[in-house]
Amino acid sequence: MLLNQINSPADLKKLSVPQLETLAEEIRGFLIEKLSITGGHLAPNLGVVELTLALHYLFDSPKDKFIFDVGHQSYVHKILTGRKGRFDTLRKYKGLCGFVKMSESEHDVWEAGHSSTSLSAAMGMAIARDLKGEDNKIVAIIGDGALTGGMALEAMNHIGHERKNMTVILNDNEMSIAPNVGALHNYLNKIRTDKHYNKVKEEFEHLLKKIPAIGGTLAKTAERLKDSLKYLVVTGVWFEELGFKYFGPVDGHNLTQLFETFKQAEKVNGPVLIHVITVKGKGYLPAEADSHAWHGGGPYKIESGQFVKVVGPPVYTDVFGNTLIELAEKDERIVAVTPAMPKGSGLEKFADAFPGRMLDVGIAEQHAATLCAALSLEGMKPVFAVYSTFMQRAYDQIVHDICRQNTNVVFAIDRAGFVGADGETHQGVYDIAFMRSIPNMVLMMPKDENELRHMMKTAFDYNEGPIAVRYPRLNGVGVKMDEELKPIPIGSWETVREGEKFAILASGAPMLELAASAAELLKSDGINPRIVNARFLKPLDENMLIGLYEDGYHLLTLEEGAVLGGFGSAVLEFYASRGIYGVKVKPIGIPDYFVEHGSPKEQRQEVGLTPERIVTEMKAMLPRKRQAAGLKSR
Amino acid sequence: MLLNQINSPADLKKLSVPQLETLAEEIRGFLIEKLSITGGHLAPNLGVVELTLALHYLFDSPKDKFIFDVGHQSYVHKILTGRKGRFDTLRKYKGLCGFVKMSESEHDVWEAGHSSTSLSAAMGMAIARDLKGEDNKIVAIIGDGALTGGMALEAMNHIGHERKNMTVILNDNEMSIAPNVGALHNYLNKIRTDKHYNKVKEEFEHLLKKIPAIGGTLAKTAERLKDSLKYLVVTGVWFEELGFKYFGPVDGHNLTQLFETFKQAEKVNGPVLIHVITVKGKGYLPAEADSHAWHGGGPYKIESGQFVKVVGPPVYTDVFGNTLIELAEKDERIVAVTPAMPKGSGLEKFADAFPGRMLDVGIAEQHAATLCAALSLEGMKPVFAVYSTFMQRAYDQIVHDICRQNTNVVFAIDRAGFVGADGETHQGVYDIAFMRSIPNMVLMMPKDENELRHMMKTAFDYNEGPIAVRYPRLNGVGVKMDEELKPIPIGSWETVREGEKFAILASGAPMLELAASAAELLKSDGINPRIVNARFLKPLDENMLIGLYEDGYHLLTLEEGAVLGGFGSAVLEFYASRGIYGVKVKPIGIPDYFVEHGSPKEQRQEVGLTPERIVTEMKAMLPRKRQAAGLKSR
Repeated sequence: MLLNQINSPADLKKLSVPQLETLAEEIRGFLIEKLSITGGHLAPNLGVVELTLALHYLFDSPKDKFIFDVGHQSYVHKILTGRKGRFDTLRKYKGLCGFVKMSESEHDVWEAGHSSTSLSAAMGMAIARDLKGEDNKIVAIIGDGALTGGMALEAMNHIGHERKNMTVILNDNEMSIAPNVGALHNYLNKIRTDKHYNKVKEEFEHLLKKIPAIGGTLAKTAERLKDSLKYLVVTGVWFEELGFKYFGPVDGHNLTQLFETFKQAEKVNGPVLIHVITVKGKGYLPAEADSHAWHGGGPYKIESGQFVKVVGPPVYTDVFGNTLIELAEKDERIVAVTPAMPKGSGLEKFADAFPGRMLDVGIAEQHAATLCAALSLEGMKPVFAVYSTFMQRAYDQIVHDICRQNTNVVFAIDRAGFVGADGETHQGVYDIAFMRSIPNMVLMMPKDENELRHMMKTAFDYNEGPIAVRYPRLNGVGVKMDEELKPIPIGSWETVREGEKFAILASGAPMLELAASAAELLKSDGINPRIVNARFLKPLDENMLIGLYEDGYHLLTLEEGAVLGGFGSAVLEFYASRGIYGVKVKPIGIPDYFVEHGSPKEQRQEVGLTPERIVTEMKAMLPRKRQAAGLKSR
Repeated sequence: MLLNQINSPADLKKLSVPQLETLAEEIRGFLIEKLSITGGHLAPNLGVVELTLALHYLFDSPKDKFIFDVGHQSYVHKILTGRKGRFDTLRKYKGLCGFVKMSESEHDVWEAGHSSTSLSAAMGMAIARDLKGEDNKIVAIIGDGALTGGMALEAMNHIGHERKNMTVILNDNEMSIAPNVGALHNYLNKIRTDKHYNKVKEEFEHLLKKIPAIGGTLAKTAERLKDSLKYLVVTGVWFEELGFKYFGPVDGHNLTQLFETFKQAEKVNGPVLIHVITVKGKGYLPAEADSHAWHGGGPYKIESGQFVKVVGPPVYTDVFGNTLIELAEKDERIVAVTPAMPKGSGLEKFADAFPGRMLDVGIAEQHAATLCAALSLEGMKPVFAVYSTFMQRAYDQIVHDICRQNTNVVFAIDRAGFVGADGETHQGVYDIAFMRSIPNMVLMMPKDENELRHMMKTAFDYNEGPIAVRYPRLNGVGVKMDEELKPIPIGSWETVREGEKFAILASGAPMLELAASAAELLKSDGINPRIVNARFLKPLDENMLIGLYEDGYHLLTLEEGAVLGGFGSAVLEFYASRGIYGVKVKPIGIPDYFVEHGSPKEQRQEVGLTPERIVTEMKAMLPRKRQAAGLKSR
């Protein structure tokens, strides 16, 4: 195995092209085998094997800097930079990160889990390099899907203007996670499918030479004609007009072609864009055949290409998707908007059922949000289906367009709370804090998959402004599903377990489960907490809060979200706003740091979202524990 | 006066072109006169007089929908739609809004104060129209500056793909607020300055006809040549490749040209982009000569073109700019990043002093933030100079790139708190809530302009992650400025007035002033509150908070920010996190709704940020007032 000899990029540089080709095959085998056990982003990484080899062969990392847009296609890079021995721990707690991670290696110089940041990062590094008078090279590797994210275009506008030296590799595989959409995609497709292009270019140059010499008034025109040749001879005019020198398209699985093009590009002053065509899933037939399904996933059987089935209740994502179809059948105002996540958001069946009402806008969360606002103003009922973490991209549009204009936009916030193996770039833990501080917003989280259905009915029946429901990346809890959908009164909570003296106000299924476990543990202490399904995070159930105060309850709030500014703070604020100062309220949520990858359970354990912690905190609220805090008595 | 006869777009349609031209002059006179008293966005509106006349003449508002990107260029539209009688109240409390405002008129169909939203809005309206089977026309009017905002490009990518019928007017005046930068701007400039373009196009077509007939292997090439003609015959290839039919460039001050082009464009199926060249400030020489200064401003003398000088201490913006120069002279790692606000952010002198270290990236907040993160990783000390309200656009980049990677980015958050006449789209009132819930962030606000200087020193000395200072759109309070800059210990507050029983924790100069006034009022009641300059919003001064608890203080927090999730909540959270439940803390801030235009003082009055309110709240915290809350005793 050549792969066994590769422990750093230096080892790579000793190999011949045929050896590199062999190595590429070995790396594919390695990835297919390892990921069959751990799961992970197989298809994107199979697509960039030769490209990554070429980069490490021709450039000099870490002096030269590779910036992987959305670092999930960095596995090959990790293999080549001394980390292949850690792949058994991929995406596991304390194990190898599934994204670029600076703490793992000096070869990792930029981290990303959200798309479209690489060009801005490369530009920042190029400006710093030039200010410091250094001369290293900077290479950003960005997919055609990520290119449509607004900030990538903002960066191109800046780069093309300043003309800093840098290389942008456009890794064109026609996919975001889902197949790409958009005018830019159509344009790339035109370039890509124009097989005779190079031949025609030569012929055209030949033809021009044949045009008879022209004098008089046409002289200037002839000159312009030559100038204008670039529109014909250069393929990527769109990029050239933005100030980039365009190279390509080049076959991303052909090392010789890659080497040649990279060497040509190196001679250019200013930014270059190399358009590389790759096949997502290359070398593993199931992944090539359905790269959307194989973008990222769990363990699988290598031979059959079947994912290992996880049995369990339906996932929230699917309950959302199916319920949306039910609702949309009766209400033709409903349209669904997704930023490039039709499958991840559970909208595939909806798209089949209502193709005209399914709007996949590509990686474009900002546009998606504002589009929803406008759809609402024209009488539609748009649902913005989005992951909590990616919704962050649309924060301003949520404030300025959706909430300020008080539009009837429904938010389906998927992957709320801990997301597990994707780790810190993907945690959906800030939405409670940032959404609830925006005026006009209603925010819900269901106790189970059945309640999600009723919440969706609630949301689409609501006509007084924006309304959001957040739900976790988990299986439901396995409850019976009601046939009939009934709206839930806005701002109403539900006591799911009667009790006394203590009340746990819990948001969402995982937190209610924690509360129930804590209640079990507390039995031996003779403590019997009430448990409340705090299904509205905004507005709060003010009557219940007043009642709990009047009945002398101590309260503990539980949320899978940042504790700073979160649901617990909302309860504290409520009492303070009413001039009620005596209530003991203990907020428990995610402390103020970024939580890395692992299983959601491990992540909860790490931050103290455990039954044991609840028990400890609750006991500490009892008067006798007061001195233990080490504080002077008043 | 023709203008006196115009009360709705219908009146306009009775006029001839020469009459419209006369009307245009009258409107200019009206704007120049009215705005000399009220202030407002003079230059942008002078630039779109003919364009707006043409729109209302040719289209049928409100059935046809005009979407003004950043609605500050909607004054002419307001004049033509029955609101000219309200211009004396422009941008005043309860007066005519300086932006498009749906509650003012059925002709206002989309509101915006932030740029680059119009294309998404138009697309949403077009989709809704087609789903409803209606046939109205939709026109978005967007500046060349706003076009570089990422979400505008996201929208173009979607529009060009779906090919919905709509008209995009590219109002090209070479300016955002400042002169435009960026590759796209360079491209537009090329089109604009190519004076002989139309002539050359004709000549080129003529030339092609002269090429001798070609057979054999070149036949295909000849065909392709014809195809390729569009690169030469069509000017806006960049837009055409994105799926738009391009028209222009057309002189935006020539009604005949505008009418002709609009009529041509009307025949096209799918999205069209009409490139209109306008002169910002057209018709008023001082504004034409310096449209940057005249973008928006206060009252002025018409004859001299001099703004009415407001005397007072230096504004925070200038103190920031001057101090930055001082710091940058000693620290060559400092670079300044602005998203198209070099003047508004006080960076003009810095740009002169350190041109290579001044990065104006255009309207591109997302790119700006991530650029800062990368600059920091490469050892620079970037300052992201941005208005609070526009920083919202970079929320995800602040979380994912700046804070998650714990980069040393300094934030200079200008226009924090109420912004006055710009109103609800521009209020800088969410930054405390959203910034403090992000891990690794440090957030400060100075008590005066002198402390701002020390805070900047603090920020640039700090090497442990991101650090932000927010300051208001106001004059300083007029204190003496220290020569020597000294860093302030992170998380330390300062007692500015000793007192007992009550402590007011106030953030920023306007709130400290309120607190002082309240203390005066309270003298007659024999209440003598301590006043604390809570200069760190994160981290809090935990020692002081413990001390205040131990000494039995009742606390009142004061902030010019959303009270939900804000500074007051942070104080509540702190005590709860320490298991301290007895302290009375009353947060006072901006309640949960969007506050409209007026003076900052009127805005504070409206929301109860007044000395009287403080007095009332404080007295309500006294035990005897408890029953007054109408609550059962425990």
